[in-house]
Amino acid sequence: MTDTEFVIEPGRQDIVMIRVLDGPPDLVFRVVTDPELIPRWWGPHHLSTRVERMEVAPGGRWRFANVDARGREHFFSGVYHAVVPAERYVRTWEFEGAPEEVALETVTLTALDGGTRYTARSVHPSVEARDAIVKAGGPRGGRESMDRLAALVVSQM
Amino acid sequence: MTDTEFVIEPGRQDIVMIRVLDGPPDLVFRVVTDPELIPRWWGPHHLSTRVERMEVAPGGRWRFANVDARGREHFFSGVYHAVVPAERYVRTWEFEGAPEEVALETVTLTALDGGTRYTARSVHPSVEARDAIVKAGGPRGGRESMDRLAALVVSQM
Repeated sequence: MTDTEFVIEPGRQDIVMIRVLDGPPDLVFRVVTDPELIPRWWGPHHLSTRVERMEVAPGGRWRFANVDARGREHFFSGVYHAVVPAERYVRTWEFEGAPEEVALETVTLTALDGGTRYTARSVHPSVEARDAIVKAGGPRGGRESMDRLAALVVSQM
Repeated sequence: MTDTEFVIEPGRQDIVMIRVLDGPPDLVFRVVTDPELIPRWWGPHHLSTRVERMEVAPGGRWRFANVDARGREHFFSGVYHAVVPAERYVRTWEFEGAPEEVALETVTLTALDGGTRYTARSVHPSVEARDAIVKAGGPRGGRESMDRLAALVVSQM
């Protein structure tokens, strides 16, 4: 299994996460936009995810709950802008505990020989907001999600 | 009348626009969130603006048309995230001709002695996307909007 690569440059406002997946872009797009499959890959390992809403279309909303072992819930939500099947989507991303620290996430799927390069670029309101996400373990959670997504894509071939 | 200040640093993804306005934050917030007043200040001088939708609340949508002298229309739209009266709002901002180049705009109002510092920070998906907005005259249009807003705020006191 390949690894997840991060590009987090000092003084910038974005986090880029790249993972090569063993399936074609149309399959990967179908997997990452399927609300039924989200609980099987999205979020850190030690939390479970419940999808409350996920309308993958321009203007559509999404809202997920992350649930810990004691049943405490944390909500994440946002709105889709551009959605181009098998290629790309753009959405906002808000942790409801910090509603002013909205991020803008662009996920791009690029066809490779026998696979897909999944690139998620998250842009944050400030360098400080981005650095806080990094410090809070965002990349670790992203890596755990990517490992599960990689296995899930293979299982859906 | 004071001038509009821009912070546009090389290699960064944001544009910060700052203007001191001669009215208190609650008045400024009321003016900038009033759909009836938008056509009197929003957008470059040579275009008129029509508000199609403007729901200033978390999850609310906005959509404006810029209309040129020949009647051609260009649409801008997005969604509000955080909205804190008299203090701040966060919204997305999309030119519908380039739906993947979404920006995230945070407008912050800070009370000054006898006025308000209006700070609009727009974060773009990439340095290239930000630089393209600058090259296309975004700051010039912003400055024209700020001049009209400054006069409008005084007229609403």
